[in-house]
Amino acid sequence: MKDITRERLSQITTATISYQLLKRGIRDVFMQGIVPLSPGGERLVGEAYTLRYIPVREDPSDLSALGSAANLARRAIEECPAGAILTVDARREVHCGTVGDILVTRLMVRGVAGVVTDGGVRDAEAVREIGLPVYSAGAAAPASPTLHMPVGLQEPISCGGVAVFPGDIIVADGDGCVVVPQALADSIAEDAAAQEEIESFIQKLVAAGRPVIGTYPPTDQIRAEYEVWLKDGSPEITE
Amino acid sequence: MKDITRERLSQITTATISYQLLKRGIRDVFMQGIVPLSPGGERLVGEAYTLRYIPVREDPSDLSALGSAANLARRAIEECPAGAILTVDARREVHCGTVGDILVTRLMVRGVAGVVTDGGVRDAEAVREIGLPVYSAGAAAPASPTLHMPVGLQEPISCGGVAVFPGDIIVADGDGCVVVPQALADSIAEDAAAQEEIESFIQKLVAAGRPVIGTYPPTDQIRAEYEVWLKDGSPEITE
Amino acid sequence: MKDITRERLSQITTATISYQLLKRGIRDVFMQGIVPLSPGGERLVGEAYTLRYIPVREDPSDLSALGSAANLARRAIEECPAGAILTVDARREVHCGTVGDILVTRLMVRGVAGVVTDGGVRDAEAVREIGLPVYSAGAAAPASPTLHMPVGLQEPISCGGVAVFPGDIIVADGDGCVVVPQALADSIAEDAAAQEEIESFIQKLVAAGRPVIGTYPPTDQIRAEYEVWLKDGSPEITE
Amino acid sequence: MKDITRERLSQITTATISYQLLKRGIRDVFMQGIVPLSPGGERLVGEAYTLRYIPVREDPSDLSALGSAANLARRAIEECPAGAILTVDARREVHCGTVGDILVTRLMVRGVAGVVTDGGVRDAEAVREIGLPVYSAGAAAPASPTLHMPVGLQEPISCGGVAVFPGDIIVADGDGCVVVPQALADSIAEDAAAQEEIESFIQKLVAAGRPVIGTYPPTDQIRAEYEVWLKDGSPEITE
Amino acid sequence: MKDITRERLSQITTATISYQLLKRGIRDVFMQGIVPLSPGGERLVGEAYTLRYIPVREDPSDLSALGSAANLARRAIEECPAGAILTVDARREVHCGTVGDILVTRLMVRGVAGVVTDGGVRDAEAVREIGLPVYSAGAAAPASPTLHMPVGLQEPISCGGVAVFPGDIIVADGDGCVVVPQALADSIAEDAAAQEEIESFIQKLVAAGRPVIGTYPPTDQIRAEYEVWLKDGSPEITE
Amino acid sequence: MKDITRERLSQITTATISYQLLKRGIRDVFMQGIVPLSPGGERLVGEAYTLRYIPVREDPSDLSALGSAANLARRAIEECPAGAILTVDARREVHCGTVGDILVTRLMVRGVAGVVTDGGVRDAEAVREIGLPVYSAGAAAPASPTLHMPVGLQEPISCGGVAVFPGDIIVADGDGCVVVPQALADSIAEDAAAQEEIESFIQKLVAAGRPVIGTYPPTDQIRAEYEVWLKDGSPEITE
Repeated sequence: MKDITRERLSQITTATISYQLLKRGIRDVFMQGIVPLSPGGERLVGEAYTLRYIPVREDPSDLSALGSAANLARRAIEECPAGAILTVDARREVHCGTVGDILVTRLMVRGVAGVVTDGGVRDAEAVREIGLPVYSAGAAAPASPTLHMPVGLQEPISCGGVAVFPGDIIVADGDGCVVVPQALADSIAEDAAAQEEIESFIQKLVAAGRPVIGTYPPTDQIRAEYEVWLKDGSPEITE
Repeated sequence: MKDITRERLSQITTATISYQLLKRGIRDVFMQGIVPLSPGGERLVGEAYTLRYIPVREDPSDLSALGSAANLARRAIEECPAGAILTVDARREVHCGTVGDILVTRLMVRGVAGVVTDGGVRDAEAVREIGLPVYSAGAAAPASPTLHMPVGLQEPISCGGVAVFPGDIIVADGDGCVVVPQALADSIAEDAAAQEEIESFIQKLVAAGRPVIGTYPPTDQIRAEYEVWLKDGSPEITE
Repeated sequence: MKDITRERLSQITTATISYQLLKRGIRDVFMQGIVPLSPGGERLVGEAYTLRYIPVREDPSDLSALGSAANLARRAIEECPAGAILTVDARREVHCGTVGDILVTRLMVRGVAGVVTDGGVRDAEAVREIGLPVYSAGAAAPASPTLHMPVGLQEPISCGGVAVFPGDIIVADGDGCVVVPQALADSIAEDAAAQEEIESFIQKLVAAGRPVIGTYPPTDQIRAEYEVWLKDGSPEITE
Repeated sequence: MKDITRERLSQITTATISYQLLKRGIRDVFMQGIVPLSPGGERLVGEAYTLRYIPVREDPSDLSALGSAANLARRAIEECPAGAILTVDARREVHCGTVGDILVTRLMVRGVAGVVTDGGVRDAEAVREIGLPVYSAGAAAPASPTLHMPVGLQEPISCGGVAVFPGDIIVADGDGCVVVPQALADSIAEDAAAQEEIESFIQKLVAAGRPVIGTYPPTDQIRAEYEVWLKDGSPEITE
Repeated sequence: MKDITRERLSQITTATISYQLLKRGIRDVFMQGIVPLSPGGERLVGEAYTLRYIPVREDPSDLSALGSAANLARRAIEECPAGAILTVDARREVHCGTVGDILVTRLMVRGVAGVVTDGGVRDAEAVREIGLPVYSAGAAAPASPTLHMPVGLQEPISCGGVAVFPGDIIVADGDGCVVVPQALADSIAEDAAAQEEIESFIQKLVAAGRPVIGTYPPTDQIRAEYEVWLKDGSPEITE
Repeated sequence: MKDITRERLSQITTATISYQLLKRGIRDVFMQGIVPLSPGGERLVGEAYTLRYIPVREDPSDLSALGSAANLARRAIEECPAGAILTVDARREVHCGTVGDILVTRLMVRGVAGVVTDGGVRDAEAVREIGLPVYSAGAAAPASPTLHMPVGLQEPISCGGVAVFPGDIIVADGDGCVVVPQALADSIAEDAAAQEEIESFIQKLVAAGRPVIGTYPPTDQIRAEYEVWLKDGSPEITE
């Protein structure tokens, strides 16, 4: 991801990004059932580093394996790159945690950007205080081995009902999480930034009394009006 | 709706209104899965102005139609009367938005009372700041054409699993939204106001140590006690 | 429940308790779909006093019976012991309330510790202000006779998808509610307290830069390190 | 249940019975998610004998207890009266069985009328061959202790989302299972039998070309026409 | 719909039609949760005539209105044209019927092609014997006024989660029901017929041992091979 | 899998196998929501060969890729070994197919034992006639690229809510599908065969009038009685 792309995406809403993706024919990239742990939702942008769980089975499951270097869930915590987002396929199973306060502390220390999981979060209160942006299916106290076994790192996964390939860009805000396919990130970021600029002009028009029909989405005439307004130094709008 | 009815309903909880409806044999008027966008829930009272969506189909769907005067979803924004509630049948589909910040700004400017939708809301953070009361199935960034096509205004609809006829009264608070059939609004408002008055007396009795059996719901004796207390100038209750 | 057990459990997270139960082979004790009424969740510990509802049927249902001494739902309010938790089997039906502000006031006055219900709560805003810890499936304005009939007190029940026997210990925090089988309460409390102590040491190590592999869950070496650190008077950890 | 009532109910569809209940204001008596094990569904009429399960918990669960005389699930098999229906509250949990071939054989030998469960059935193929009418949420191989513990016999229960009191009459056919409150059984049976007679006349009229408006449900004129037709010896109808 | 189109569509599977729609970018036209009433599923082709229900509300609901000429559900039975399909939006509510044996008899007499409903069917056994093709969400004995009120005829609706406009073509077989937008019917029918012809050739190749890679979907080479085979008089294929 | 194990497992019900797994502490191995395509369910035993799908995304999705040698879904058809079971992780998505008649023909020709998928099946009627045992979440006409992209072969997967490792043994009958961990297959097969033998004796006792308490599950006394009966040449049982 180019620096300018990361910068742009960190200031754009998921609503605008989703719209740009829809314009390119891509509908199914907004994660379902995943909400910010902190009310409002701290903004989060980064490349996906993926971890895949399958349902636990009592024969291979072993609590003592949790701390071992071979445990993929633990390796994910240590190997997810700084600036990336730990992205977890937990089969949308909300009834147990997939990360907790100690693991989130480690991710924070390592410079990881945040966590996106379609499973639960343990110690939700403590995790909220740590401050790392976490998006999940909700709080749940049971530890991950209650329902999960880790089986893969950096594989293509399903998360919140959408495809995530390692390296895809995830953007999250109060509305939730959207996946931007890696190859489209630069173009989406550019067009979305432009869209937000003109929409902020439209927002001003509408606040001043302009009807939405003929104004939003912008017609050619509105685009012309916008150019004039920009040239005029963006004067205050009262109608 | 008479002014006194609107005034009364704006001070009564949905819990009390639901109880009055239940006493009249009407059970299914509390919307399911619809919550306030702002924690706690700003109170909302108004007549329903309805908009009906069906699932999108790629052949008639066209993003460019969004801004056209013929688009029913846009006409709803411009035609919903001041004081009314834009009430949206989105088939309880929570995975895309049905209104966003620009549309809500326009509704606010036009004096619309609020929005009730069994679909999602885009730009949830921005919408929260605008301050218009919005009740929905939650935040979701994708725009409405991702999953919806508007097909009708001011038709009878299903919203949150209950029937809404244009002109029915909707009342909303922190518990959610209840539909008051238009023909019953005056009588419900009157009886509900009376119920809340005696219940506030009962609440004082219970806080002072009175058991609920024999007290709540009020027996004839409690009603008599209440009349005396009123006549006495509503003295403080300590037991 | 011994005093020391209650004291310990009131300071331990449901995450730690769930882990101790999992170590004993008990997986299904964390309630599903039950969240704190107040954001964050006030801690709650107590013995379960159970009330069981079945679906309402119009023939025996009678609103006037609500206030009668024979009504089991009302008896539950008056008979649930001080320090206990009113625990309600509402079949995970979220579309009507099971308690409201007057009943919660009475429970508060009577010294009951809190309410855990897999149904809804009426007058959610008012109940939040009363301050008694309430965990439920969410807010819903309709009164309980809309969907429920009470049929049993102090029976074994299902609540949030898990078994609850009268006298089991329920512990709740921001993550939700966990059931501790009565016979295991003392041992769980003791081991969980010890686990939290060493985990608070581990948390410090990790915050200071220690990787989680080899540290968490604690190996024998970490346990030894912990003993030394304790003996040393728990010095600040910087790595 | 009077003999005439049992006889009538064994020849009436659940559709007609549901309609008679609806006319008396009773809506919620048709079980949800319960289907006949044998395609088409063998008719079943009898008084409910109830068994209640709660979720399994590993601490009290013990496979060896299954065969003991104290096990309520086994006592239900031996104590359900001849002519009655074993009616099981399994919390609509479809992922394990609640009866299997050996238990159903025993029920058959004992003269029990059939089984209605909102859980699963094991050995579905073998049970189908035994021939005892079984209505359930579907086939599932795991034994009941996988997910259930029996906790009550002859209590009021929820089954398929509706209330069942011991002694209520259950009628089942290809559409599913309806609960007739004990006190209404005689009157429902009488009126339903009369309804089916006139509807069989209406069916003939409609098959011969009569429109449904003005014919079904029967108007006074249709009722008069029916009386004449009966008096005439029920001649063939061609229109 | 041209005669040739109806003829073609009556011999093509919904699988092939869905594939042709997908090739044109139309994904969401296969109804969800709707199955044939008769095992296997009798083929059904026709134009949609729509009926829309909303949830019942006790105040306007009145059983006696069922037989009146003003009742839209009854008008639908009398007005749905011969050769068309009565298509019902029942909000995917499976717990009550939307048609029963008498209404289906009338539809049969009137020459209606069949019924597609995302609600239930009453008297399922009797309806199966009548022989009119019916596709639904399953059997359910309660009459439609238990949960529904009819509010519209020949409106655009949602059925089984997909859009249906009056006049759209519905095709149904053992897999379920697919909606063909009216404007695409001729072209879909033509291409789908051609697809089925070459796939029947591919099926013979594969049955004779040809691998699917390079064969299915057909490459240019397979298409050439097919042309030769046709010219040769479609000889038996053994490999 | 030893020959004797395969032979035994092909004659044992999934009910008995599930019970043996439960006795070893393994609860979660029976697939949820997966039913036989043919009523009754043809028995199926084999080693799992796995294919994993994630949700489709419009950017990488390309119908023309379906026939290419690089397409994993097509490779699965050609590479699944004879005698094995093609086992598909389709995220329990029932609204599109994962195999259809041509692919199933190829699998049949190649000697594959059957298909187990937690997604749908296209051309269900045609697939039923081919005769290869198929277990799925039901019929659905849309092709797999409508909702899926293949991303992995022979990985550990989730199927029907349970873990499947490549090489695990799957057994299926009318009740559905159970996964036998590879390492336990021989021991499960042996013990399950023994269990079925004594249960067939118990079935005879119960059919002859023996109560289930004290008989089933077998006590030591029943086991002794069984040994005697075997020694006596398994005489007919009448009680």
